[in-house]
Amino acid sequence: MPTDPLSATFAALADPTRRAILARLSMGETTVTELAAPFEMSLPAVTKHLKVLQRAGLVSQGRQAQWRPCKLTPEPLREATDWLEQYRQQWEQRLDRLESYLRELQARESGQ
Amino acid sequence: MPTDPLSATFAALADPTRRAILARLSMGETTVTELAAPFEMSLPAVTKHLKVLQRAGLVSQGRQAQWRPCKLTPEPLREATDWLEQYRQQWEQRLDRLESYLRELQARESGQ
Repeated sequence: MPTDPLSATFAALADPTRRAILARLSMGETTVTELAAPFEMSLPAVTKHLKVLQRAGLVSQGRQAQWRPCKLTPEPLREATDWLEQYRQQWEQRLDRLESYLRELQARESGQ
Repeated sequence: MPTDPLSATFAALADPTRRAILARLSMGETTVTELAAPFEMSLPAVTKHLKVLQRAGLVSQGRQAQWRPCKLTPEPLREATDWLEQYRQQWEQRLDRLESYLRELQARESGQ
């Protein structure tokens, strides 16, 4: 496991099941059993993914004896987005260039 | 290595050296040797990190014989940001609540 928080966040996000778990939790708290239901995997396998998310600080679990709901803690996602946002300008510029190139091609075709 | 593109992007970002390489490349193209210079690691170690970034489609390398510059290809970063953006509302709401709670505490303290 990575030691710095940002690396731990990105490593936790590098799995489709863990991203699906976060998507589910973004709609509200739920138990581990309910959380595991839509996945075609064993409860221990889902629990293992949950532990990765918990270690990265993306999920917390309540302490009530009977009902220990899992909850999304979105702060690390904010850090990750902040890091990625610094590259926004670059991809936007590239998309702009691609778009104007496509427009140029279309103009040439309609001119024929 | 993860098989879906988004997982490959997040896995590639889960390392401080690889993030530093992307930060350097965001300022412009450069050779592998120049890229490796600021890092306290061997050229093969840097090359290994570069290969992870290349497999994830984040870095491409020119084909000229003498000068094979590495270049940032920012599109996968856009996909990653798009995925994260869906959680923006959640962390913003949490930060808003925290902020108003802090303001309330301050107001109570200055009222004493």
